[in-house]
Formats: sequence, C-alpha cells, structure tokens
Amino acid sequence: MAPLSVAEALDRVTKGLAPLEAERVALGEASGRVLAEDVAAQLTQPPFDASAMDGYAVRAADVAALPATLRVIGRSAAGAGFRGRVGPGEAVRIFTGAPVPEGADFIVIQENAEEAPGSVIVREAAGGSFIRPRGQDFSEGDILLTAGTRLGPRELMLAAAMNRADLPVRRKPRVAILATGNEVVPPGSELAADQIVSSVPIGLAALIARHGGEAMPLGIARDEPESIVTLARAGSAADILVTIGGASVGEYDLVATALKAEGLELDFWKIAMRPGKPLLFGRMGKQRVLGVPGNPVSALICAEVFLVPMLRKLLGAGERESHEPDAILGEALAANGPREHYMRALSEWREDGARVVTPLPSQDSSLVAALARADCLIVRPPNAPALPRGARVRIVPLDRG
Amino acid sequence: MAPLSVAEALDRVTKGLAPLEAERVALGEASGRVLAEDVAAQLTQPPFDASAMDGYAVRAADVAALPATLRVIGRSAAGAGFRGRVGPGEAVRIFTGAPVPEGADFIVIQENAEEAPGSVIVREAAGGSFIRPRGQDFSEGDILLTAGTRLGPRELMLAAAMNRADLPVRRKPRVAILATGNEVVPPGSELAADQIVSSVPIGLAALIARHGGEAMPLGIARDEPESIVTLARAGSAADILVTIGGASVGEYDLVATALKAEGLELDFWKIAMRPGKPLLFGRMGKQRVLGVPGNPVSALICAEVFLVPMLRKLLGAGERESHEPDAILGEALAANGPREHYMRALSEWREDGARVVTPLPSQDSSLVAALARADCLIVRPPNAPALPRGARVRIVPLDRG
Repeated sequence: MAPLSVAEALDRVTKGLAPLEAERVALGEASGRVLAEDVAAQLTQPPFDASAMDGYAVRAADVAALPATLRVIGRSAAGAGFRGRVGPGEAVRIFTGAPVPEGADFIVIQENAEEAPGSVIVREAAGGSFIRPRGQDFSEGDILLTAGTRLGPRELMLAAAMNRADLPVRRKPRVAILATGNEVVPPGSELAADQIVSSVPIGLAALIARHGGEAMPLGIARDEPESIVTLARAGSAADILVTIGGASVGEYDLVATALKAEGLELDFWKIAMRPGKPLLFGRMGKQRVLGVPGNPVSALICAEVFLVPMLRKLLGAGERESHEPDAILGEALAANGPREHYMRALSEWREDGARVVTPLPSQDSSLVAALARADCLIVRPPNAPALPRGARVRIVPLDRG
Repeated sequence: MAPLSVAEALDRVTKGLAPLEAERVALGEASGRVLAEDVAAQLTQPPFDASAMDGYAVRAADVAALPATLRVIGRSAAGAGFRGRVGPGEAVRIFTGAPVPEGADFIVIQENAEEAPGSVIVREAAGGSFIRPRGQDFSEGDILLTAGTRLGPRELMLAAAMNRADLPVRRKPRVAILATGNEVVPPGSELAADQIVSSVPIGLAALIARHGGEAMPLGIARDEPESIVTLARAGSAADILVTIGGASVGEYDLVATALKAEGLELDFWKIAMRPGKPLLFGRMGKQRVLGVPGNPVSALICAEVFLVPMLRKLLGAGERESHEPDAILGEALAANGPREHYMRALSEWREDGARVVTPLPSQDSSLVAALARADCLIVRPPNAPALPRGARVRIVPLDRG
C-alpha cells in the first residue's frame, strides 16, 4: 500500500465523525467547553432606559438655557428606581445603571451640577443625553452565542448577563491512551539497562485536555496480543483509542494484529509524513483507533495534525482558524523528499512584526528536548523545492505551556 | 487625587508581589502550572548508542564493498539488546531505538538488505550511520526546563522523558471574588423589575483559572458594610480579593469604607483609563485588594490589564510576551481624551497576513455582547492625536474561548 498524503489521511480520520451528544453544565464549569446549540438571551439588556452616568435626570427642555435651578424630587439608584414622574422644573438624583424616570430624557452629569438644599443648579449640559436605551446591549430572544463556540471568560460573562445559569455543551470526547512496549516504564522508575521512560501518554493527555477532550490513560501494554487486548478493552468506552508504538518487530504489526481479533477494521497504516511515517488508523465498532509512533516527537506531531482535528469534529467546533501569516526563512532549506516534513523551528521577530523562522540544527525525531524548545513547525510539502533564506514558508505555531 | 496613569497603576498593583511557595504535583496534574525551580534530567537520553532505523547492525568496514553477505548472529530490540559483540563478517538484526551492539558502528537499513537463512545480503549502505549517539537528546543533569515555564504538552512530555514523576510548581494564586449590589442577583434568577444579573464573577473566574489562578467566588454582598465585611472575611485566605462594583452611591465608597474597618490601606482608586475609571487598589494585611467597576466590560478589561499581571507575578511567570505586531486601522479614529482608551474592535486579515482592525460602532462600556464579539482591543494612549485609516495602532488580542 503506497503511503497516504497527510491531506488524504486527515480526510479519512475525520470522515463521518459527528458532534457528540449535548449535556448541560453550570456556567462555573463551562470554561473551555463547546456550545452544542445556539443560545438566546432570556432578557433585554438594559431592561429599561438607564443612566450612563451619576448625575441628575431632567427634561432636556429645562436645561436648554443655563444656568438652571431645578427642584430635586427624588432619587433613582440601581435596584431602586424612582417611581414618580419628572415634571417641568424638576430633577431626580440618579446613578449609573439606574432607570431613567418617566418624563426625563436627559442626564446632567454630576460634574456639571451643583447641589443646593432641595435643588440642583445646572451649569452645563453638553455631551449627549447619557441615556442607555432599553435593549442597547441585547434583547430577549437574540441569539448571541452560536453552536460550536468555545466558551471563554467573555462568552461566559455574556451568558450570565443573558440570565443563563447553565449551557448546553458537547460531551467531552473520551480518548483512551494505550502505550506499548516491554521496555517501556512509567516516569520516575528506577531504570534497568535497556528500559526507556514512557513520556508520550503524559504529553498526549495534556494535549487532549487542552483541546476539550478527556484523556483516559490505560497504562503500558507488554508486546503481547493478550496484554494489548486487555488494556484496549478497559478503554472500550472511549470515542477514540490512541495506541502508542507497536512492537519491537515492525511497528503496529503487533497492535494491528491484536486489535483485529477485537474487530479492528484497518483503514491505513502508512502516511507520507515526517516525522510520523507509521500512522495506523481504523475503526473498532464505534470507536476510532489512531496508532501513533512510539517515538515521542512523532507521536506529538501526529496528534497535533490528526487527533486535534478529530476532537474538533466530535466537539462540533469547526476547523481550526489560523490567521498566521507565512513566516520568513532565516536560513536556506534543501529540497524536500516525498514526505510532508514538519520541521521543528525557532522564531525571531523583526521590527516590523514579521516572524523569521530557523529550523533547529537536528531534525532527528528522537529529540524530545528540541521539540520542547521549538516554537513552531515549518511545513514542507512533499517534493518541495529548495528555498533561499528570506523565502516565505507556512508554519504551525506551537503553544507555550 | 488626580487619576493615575495605567502604567503607574500597573506598577503599583504588581510592586512587591513575590512568587508563591512551591508545591510538588504529579505530571498528570501539572498542565498549565508554572515551574517553581529549574529542572534537571535524571538520565541520559538515549542512554546508549541507539539505532535510528530498523535494519542490521554491522561494521562499516564490512559494507565498504557491496554486495556483502554477513552472518546474522543475533537480535537487538528495544528492551532486549544483544549482549555479544559484532565481529568481522557479522551482523545483528536491529530495530529502531534498540542498543547498537558492541563492535558495530553502522546500521544497514532494512530496505537495503535481503534476508537469507542465517545471513543477510547487503545491497546498499548509504545515507549515514543511522546511529543516535548516547546523550544526543540530553544528558543527566542537563537543565532542560527552567523556573517560570508554564507547562504544556511538550514540556510535560519532556519532563517525563527526563524521568521525573512530579514537578515543583508554584501554588495557584487564590483570588476571592466579591460582588456587591442590592439589585444584583445570580444568573438564572426570576428577575424583579429593578434587578440585574450578576455576570462579572463568572467571567473573572474563567479568566483567573485560565491564567493559572484559583477563583474563590464569595457571592453577592448587599450594599451594607456588614454584608461586605462578612463575605470579605470568608475570602481571607485568598492572595487577592477582587471586589466588583461598590455601591449605588459613588462607586467604591461603600467597599472602601467597609474594608477600611478591616484594615484596608487604600493605595488609589482612580485611574486614567477607559473603560474602568474607578479602580480601587489597596492592601489588607498580606492580601491585595483590587476593586473593579460593576460594569462588566470595564471589570473584565481591568482584570485583563491589572489582575493578569498580578497573577503572573505570584506565579513567577515573568511578563507576558507579545509579538503581536501593530495592526492597521480600518477606519479613521478621533483624537483621544486624557484617559487611556481600550477600544473593542474586530479584525480582518489581508492577503499579506496584516491585521486590519476596526472599532465596534459603540464603545459604550455597558455592552457585554459587543465585548464578546470583539477579537482585540485597540489601545489609545492618553491624548493620542486623531489617526487616519491605515495608521498603525497597538492592540491587545483577545483569546477566543
């Protein structure tokens, strides 16, 4: 089977993935969740014509000629409006956010007024009426938040202002993580000679959580079908099963063989991508199975490129928007081979804000420290020609922390 | 007291804030936390010269002339190295990541070799030795993660690869949130005529969590000193107390008065900023008190500008890096008044990647829906001159979700 292009592989792994069911969560729990439905305001804001300033509510006609002395007949505060009516020659002391009393159509701001016993002397009345009309912000029934929106501080504040106590959000996609390898041990272990530390599950779990999923770490299977099957079954409730590495003999042969007995229908297992050539993908009942390389750098880049878009589809979040302009090459690049290459790179910013990117000296996919140091990936399409310093290249920025 | 400039106010609110104590957390709990100490590798990676490919470990001298037939004397897999030595005319079957056996100094990749019973025929031997030297990634004792680093997927994967099971991180800054107002009720309430919904605490809590803090919502105090004091005391364990709004009569008078009886030393309460003019700041014992306006837009912008830098100081995270280039004005702007203005704006991106920003039509600070819709703030310094369309302006991008 010829290796698939990254675009074709991405198409296959996301095809048919529909948004998960909705669930209601309280606003305080909803940060980072994705809206499952459009959400309408349950009130009109402001619910009445409101004062935009501290001052006096008056009739504009009474302050056309200045100075003017008006009789203060009451007080309108937020939560305690004035129930009467402002007549000619009258004023009501008013505070920001308070309802403008009937009859009044103008706010004299505090700085332009001088209090006197039972009255107010208006010296100036410029700069607009200082009235926020009813519904200036929004009206009951307005759809202000739409399905697919990821909820952050501002969206949640708006939802509260719309008088929603909870919101319909997509269930978090569950992603089971199954590491493999007789030689692989958890971090913090006392290491025997040939053992290596399992680092991919920790990185994937953080990536999954960051993109709105729920990681289910299944542990490390031995390179034996029974061990792999036992752990995979523990993750059967997951929407996606991510396997890491495969076996000492031919990556994925062992994982694919073991899971085929469990019903895995293999879709592909080779892609024209660097790092990350061996990528397994298939379906096991309703579950999608994504097998990433055991190599940590390849695993994390494959997860960025394939797993994150799968999560977005399950969340109904649409495609990732990127307005990142092409970056400028800080050094010349050789022609690329037949595999799409994701080069780890460091950026500097020019005076004019342009981003200049330089690949790290070694692109060996075993260098975990280099991946952590990088701040972006330069994407080189298959068979891309050599490029001089200063050429423009597409990049994928890598989030810090 | 003349209003303080934003820069001066920022200086005062962050002055003297030192990083909080360290605590150890397991890697699985450390995402988004900030490292309290430099962290050194506890092993060398790779711990031995390792094969970069599947193939055969041989002596380079034996494949100088091709084709060459070599006797296969064993097998080196990850986790199960070959214990013997590769002599002249000998080869060891080897897999990616496995130790290169003694005597061998070259890997013939699988594609260039042809298996025969007990032997291998090498047809080609080009493209480098395919050996990853011991310590190519990092060596024991190397400091690979430094204090102040925010931990994300890549940093955590690296920490695991360094064989750390847990990490020293800063305790999360605790931020108590105290809303005020007789008229203010929690979201989801049945609203009486003059009541308004409390939306700021929800927005602040999400913002605080996003920036590594722990929000402690204290509820809504009535506009009475006893009520404010009772709630403030419930938040006495917080590093920062944020109060929202103040009172119907002169914002902050009531909060400041109530908290002065509790030991509040007021530093300032007016800043030359729009939105957000009334900003209260002071100290109450070890606790910092930040009073933001009751108006949701002002409150959230004040929190972005002042509270986030306070959190970063408590986390030892350094100043926020921004490489955001100046944006291009999509329409002309009038001259600014004496207050630094944070204008809500929408962006479009030009072909060349430049960001063109246009202020939303109304900059009224009561418009919560407009704040949610904006994707950046245009920062206008005090008394900035009018600017034509196409001029460059500083912006603060607003995170989505």
